[in-house]
Amino acid sequence: MKTNKEKAKEISKKAKEKQKSVLESLKNHGAKIYEDLENGRFPKFSIPSRSVGNIVYDKKLRQYILGNSNALRSAKNSAQLRSFTQLMWLAFFANRLTQEKKSSTLRDVYYSSQAFAIEFEDQSESDNIIVDLEAVTSRPREDFHIFPEERSSIFGDLNIEYTIPGYEGKKMNLSNHPDGYSIGPSLTTAELVDTSAEIVIAIEKGGLFTRFVEEQIDKKFKSIIINTGGQAPRSTRTLLKRLHDELGLPVIILTDGDVYGEHIAMVIKSGSANAAHLRELTVPDAKWVGVWATDIEKYKLPTIPMTESDIKRCYDLQKDPRYESGIWKKELEVFLRLKRKAELEAFAKYGLTNITDKYLPQKLELAKSL
Amino acid sequence: MKTNKEKAKEISKKAKEKQKSVLESLKNHGAKIYEDLENGRFPKFSIPSRSVGNIVYDKKLRQYILGNSNALRSAKNSAQLRSFTQLMWLAFFANRLTQEKKSSTLRDVYYSSQAFAIEFEDQSESDNIIVDLEAVTSRPREDFHIFPEERSSIFGDLNIEYTIPGYEGKKMNLSNHPDGYSIGPSLTTAELVDTSAEIVIAIEKGGLFTRFVEEQIDKKFKSIIINTGGQAPRSTRTLLKRLHDELGLPVIILTDGDVYGEHIAMVIKSGSANAAHLRELTVPDAKWVGVWATDIEKYKLPTIPMTESDIKRCYDLQKDPRYESGIWKKELEVFLRLKRKAELEAFAKYGLTNITDKYLPQKLELAKSL
Repeated sequence: MKTNKEKAKEISKKAKEKQKSVLESLKNHGAKIYEDLENGRFPKFSIPSRSVGNIVYDKKLRQYILGNSNALRSAKNSAQLRSFTQLMWLAFFANRLTQEKKSSTLRDVYYSSQAFAIEFEDQSESDNIIVDLEAVTSRPREDFHIFPEERSSIFGDLNIEYTIPGYEGKKMNLSNHPDGYSIGPSLTTAELVDTSAEIVIAIEKGGLFTRFVEEQIDKKFKSIIINTGGQAPRSTRTLLKRLHDELGLPVIILTDGDVYGEHIAMVIKSGSANAAHLRELTVPDAKWVGVWATDIEKYKLPTIPMTESDIKRCYDLQKDPRYESGIWKKELEVFLRLKRKAELEAFAKYGLTNITDKYLPQKLELAKSL
Repeated sequence: MKTNKEKAKEISKKAKEKQKSVLESLKNHGAKIYEDLENGRFPKFSIPSRSVGNIVYDKKLRQYILGNSNALRSAKNSAQLRSFTQLMWLAFFANRLTQEKKSSTLRDVYYSSQAFAIEFEDQSESDNIIVDLEAVTSRPREDFHIFPEERSSIFGDLNIEYTIPGYEGKKMNLSNHPDGYSIGPSLTTAELVDTSAEIVIAIEKGGLFTRFVEEQIDKKFKSIIINTGGQAPRSTRTLLKRLHDELGLPVIILTDGDVYGEHIAMVIKSGSANAAHLRELTVPDAKWVGVWATDIEKYKLPTIPMTESDIKRCYDLQKDPRYESGIWKKELEVFLRLKRKAELEAFAKYGLTNITDKYLPQKLELAKSL
């Protein structure tokens, strides 16, 4: 068995290796630019095309991926000179962030560019170039220390060990603060050491998260509970993937019983089309267990009528290949038939703990066969 | 000196006393209803009027308060019968939540009513009745275990002791998880035991919160750092007030340099007109230290043009008595002159740590004289 010291060493080694590989990838791209210049060629980047025509759904990977078409961004083409320079600067800046291990946000990068007289029209232009760098390097921007600002939270018996500067080697168990631990850069980059949990329950709402903790769902069902706070931020999706892949935990998702809830679950499962160049943000084995449209009738839940935009959203999703079969297809159809939706809190009609006493155990049982 | 055991006993006693006083207050209102019925009178509630005409700004308390006018809600008046019954049911339900120490949300209460065939048209109707109960009892709904769903987070050397069931007497120090601890029911009701911090810094954005933790602002400036996540949720405002009142910590606020940021600070300081019946949500001594409109010029910050709605909002706030003097008035005027705004991240133009290395120390110094 490994001693704690050996383990800590291993974790720190792993973090260093990752940093090294990120820096090398950037260096290689830089070297090509130099090579072009030395050989009297205009420097260029080859960027996997992110245009709609090059985004295809991969049934094996169970997510959207980019096809084979590449766009050349060259200093030779004066129309591309601007975005070529922006991308080159960004690679330089990402290198610096990674070396200095400073965290930043999309917005920080936008403003930082101004110190270098690199012109971005607005933040959406710089955001776009950041996605280009992700596509060029096939790495999520978090590897370059560009983190989302949004926070969600986690609670449960999970031991982690931080890798961020100032906290390297420090351990934490995430079951002592019942309001939950925020999921930010330090948690997503931490080593997941071990857990007694056997499942991860991702839930859409803060109020329900509190209810689950209060009713000790973490203990009763040996689970880690995650509040996604609506659409799960990238950091939360990364953590869900890591809990699944590294600790072998199944992931189930509970959302409101409406088309947006269904899609929140789908994005955790298979990502989104505009992150088709990444593999770090999906949990293909994650299971949406409710609230289904069919649950509305089965559990006689209080409902709210669907709005015009809810209905339109259903029709839109029906064109998405991921909604072509299984519960995804069926539940959309039932939503469209009922034209009603139900919130997670609707179970409170039958008592505040009805959702944890009755609904959850049934869904956990069902999840085994999904 | 008190032993830990004695302290824990004291804390648990305090929590019990609070619960008792909440229950007594509800019981007294219930007793009046019974009394009316026994004496052959129609039962009624006297509710402090929350109409615009009865909301006045109190310069001494430095917040909005309700005037002396009361509305009678009586079972005699058939137009009031509905809301009278709703309020009576809510008092019954609040009694149950308080006794059972179950947490809930506004939405939970709305759905719970359906189990009792108490009719609410929609959630906004039940939300409104909940505010009525606050006004009748002069207590925030959190005292009845109705908590907000929103989450913000906190980080710093603060020792707390939980009072919620299942965690009673458990201690926690909030300086070990660098992504921050979520602020929910268990934190807002915890006993604030002690701290080595000398100031609380509330900051509007998650990205900056991470930067502040990363740059060890908690240690360098002996501070507790709070991410308000935009407009501070009620739980965060309650906690800020308690940190100020119970631990004697000054509170400073950093927001984006725009009219919404200025108002985020004002709401932390003096609450909002629709909570004029409460005293638990304001920190009158809290200081907004930036980003001021005047900072935009002083620090040569990159700016964004104000929108039409930003400008309209400035004019609206100029009619608010709280914006009649001091920096509140001055900064609104400068925003209107510049017609530009700046985000907290704008300091990144001068380096990612410019805000913590230069701006913050200057503002902390200045705060002493504000």
